[in-house]
Amino acid sequence: MMSSMQQDNQKKRDVFKVPASEIRQRTLNIQKELQQNNIDGFFILQRVDLFYFSGTAQNGFLYIPAEGEPVLFIRQYFPRARAESSLNTIIEIKSIKEIPALLNDIYGRIPGVLGFELDILPVNDFYFYRSLIQARDNVDGSPLILKSRMIKSQWEIRQMEKTAELTRQTFSYMQTIIQPGLSEMEFAGMAEIYARKLGHGGQIRTRHYQTEGYPWHVLSGKNSARIGLLDAVASGEGTSAAFPVGAGTKKLKRNEPIMVDMALVLNGYHLDETRMFAIDKMPQKAKDAAQAVIEIHNAVLDKAKPGIALGELFEYSVRTAESKGLATPYLGAPGHKVTFIGHGIGLEIVEPAFIAKNRKEPLEAGMTFALEPKMVFENEFAAGVESVFAVTETGSRLITKIPVEIFIC
Amino acid sequence: MMSSMQQDNQKKRDVFKVPASEIRQRTLNIQKELQQNNIDGFFILQRVDLFYFSGTAQNGFLYIPAEGEPVLFIRQYFPRARAESSLNTIIEIKSIKEIPALLNDIYGRIPGVLGFELDILPVNDFYFYRSLIQARDNVDGSPLILKSRMIKSQWEIRQMEKTAELTRQTFSYMQTIIQPGLSEMEFAGMAEIYARKLGHGGQIRTRHYQTEGYPWHVLSGKNSARIGLLDAVASGEGTSAAFPVGAGTKKLKRNEPIMVDMALVLNGYHLDETRMFAIDKMPQKAKDAAQAVIEIHNAVLDKAKPGIALGELFEYSVRTAESKGLATPYLGAPGHKVTFIGHGIGLEIVEPAFIAKNRKEPLEAGMTFALEPKMVFENEFAAGVESVFAVTETGSRLITKIPVEIFIC
Repeated sequence: MMSSMQQDNQKKRDVFKVPASEIRQRTLNIQKELQQNNIDGFFILQRVDLFYFSGTAQNGFLYIPAEGEPVLFIRQYFPRARAESSLNTIIEIKSIKEIPALLNDIYGRIPGVLGFELDILPVNDFYFYRSLIQARDNVDGSPLILKSRMIKSQWEIRQMEKTAELTRQTFSYMQTIIQPGLSEMEFAGMAEIYARKLGHGGQIRTRHYQTEGYPWHVLSGKNSARIGLLDAVASGEGTSAAFPVGAGTKKLKRNEPIMVDMALVLNGYHLDETRMFAIDKMPQKAKDAAQAVIEIHNAVLDKAKPGIALGELFEYSVRTAESKGLATPYLGAPGHKVTFIGHGIGLEIVEPAFIAKNRKEPLEAGMTFALEPKMVFENEFAAGVESVFAVTETGSRLITKIPVEIFIC
Repeated sequence: MMSSMQQDNQKKRDVFKVPASEIRQRTLNIQKELQQNNIDGFFILQRVDLFYFSGTAQNGFLYIPAEGEPVLFIRQYFPRARAESSLNTIIEIKSIKEIPALLNDIYGRIPGVLGFELDILPVNDFYFYRSLIQARDNVDGSPLILKSRMIKSQWEIRQMEKTAELTRQTFSYMQTIIQPGLSEMEFAGMAEIYARKLGHGGQIRTRHYQTEGYPWHVLSGKNSARIGLLDAVASGEGTSAAFPVGAGTKKLKRNEPIMVDMALVLNGYHLDETRMFAIDKMPQKAKDAAQAVIEIHNAVLDKAKPGIALGELFEYSVRTAESKGLATPYLGAPGHKVTFIGHGIGLEIVEPAFIAKNRKEPLEAGMTFALEPKMVFENEFAAGVESVFAVTETGSRLITKIPVEIFIC
């Protein structure tokens, strides 16, 4: 039997850490983008971007020059940042106001053209940092970060596979606990606790301030057809007018379709998956619809190869739905249809690229998507499926480990 | 026995709705601020602000002129916004690009000086809206919103009292389920499910993009002394380097101090409360510390009356800690002390005002605070307490219904 200290040591060895080689490659990738865009350096603030490029999410600021070594300034807590990040230069600071002088000391100058994450940085914060650092020009570097993050390394895909195993077990557990009388919120909560025991990180991360991430998008019966604020086929009931999305207080019933759309996260990497559930029996119309979206999902996956335009995959899914006579419910109630069937996924639950209408960009190896063809029969129910897949050199491969089928429990 | 339809009707009658009188008063309050600051109108985007001034959180945009009727533009979903909001003018739009023409139609002109929420609005979004609406001048109106929201109405305080009843029951439940071997995350999760059955809304809302709200800040034993990225006495272990705050995988043990800092939300209104727990027995040093913070908490409450400066309350708490010989652990480990003991709370978990160092502003009736004196014995444990109170005309009154004591279970 291990002593408590031995167990602690064992645990330490297993601690998740972003490898130094990953950080080096990510740095090189963004530096290439900086050079091509004539940006002298990037001042990275947002926690997820900071974690991506440094390996730590402690309170700090990362400066990546177009050439040379990045420097990580840590306000709090230095020992944790030091343990988590493989970067060579990590400097403890008391105040952000020390940074301009430090940049001058380290690089011999303040960058001329400085990149910021202007897609998420609030105006007041930007004004503050701009006047603090006093670069000649301040530009939006966020597309370069998102472009870098869009292509996942093999190591990142392995992280997502670990999350996929966690979500597989969680969906499997949900099949054993689902029962009439549980509210949507309660059922989702039971699944979440189970997932937390397996390492689920809790917080679902989103990038834009208007997007709220949560792991309890369980919509049952008519609730699954409820339109709402989300750019999704259905928003659900939610818990009040203050938070009118996702699971609500409705209790699950026998013989109704239940759409379980669950996002979970492990070591920062998300999965986002949907399966149709029913207790005892799913009405035939819902079952047919659930089967149809699975067929569309599989057809799209077959076509998802490097080089095909994202918009073409989207259109193909629409044509497939039309060929099944499902143009009306496909992608949402008329007047409220979404114009995408897939979104990139990784350290944030929604990130580029998008399998969406009119997108000309091609699929590239290393992209990871949550593919979610869904449909809504107005005032009746929704049917959908969602899996995460990775684009490979020759095609694509499911990361999701949950069987792509309907769960009758 | 009620039929299902009767139950549905019963439920409908109970549905939470912000009263029209509240919305009218809030509108008048912000309009007074707009007039005093020579702002012609406010373009409100952020979901919580939109909900505060309209009663709905659907996907839309609210324009409040300095004088006259506000107009709510709803992109999706109009029927829900219509049911939730008491505003007279609610217009369904397909695209935000319709708004300038609509403003011209309704008010006869585009506002000259237009307010935006520049404390949270990302730079790119601001540039888009600014060029869309083309006001002569665009200014930061967020301090006016936060000032309005800082003073709660009696109705709002009643909402927070409902949340307080939910949190009381949840803390009571936690005393019955706590046991050695549960991980911090698991214990917090069990409490969350219980709270969800009582109506807990799920999402803890924060304003700034760098602040992540979550309801599982359960830190046990040495974990409760772990410094991290939070502006708090302790950040905890978290679930990985990607999310290094809050509960972690450590299992609860007998005879150790456990700090349970739990935020819950009902109908949009948050509570944020902390109590010290122990299984079987709390070590005497921790018990003394937990008792000391309760005494500081109560002493501050006694002094919390309209007119006293926020900074004076803070300093008084520091003096009280010093008089107990607790200057070293109070407010955090040396070098990592926080400079506040309380924060405003309402539709967001942290909002103005702040009971913090050097704050000259006075306490005002209608302010609501989470008061959280805490201390850290470095590398040992943290002890803290946190209650929510409202400032009344003559003093202050606890909203929190959880007994202010140590829970030995």
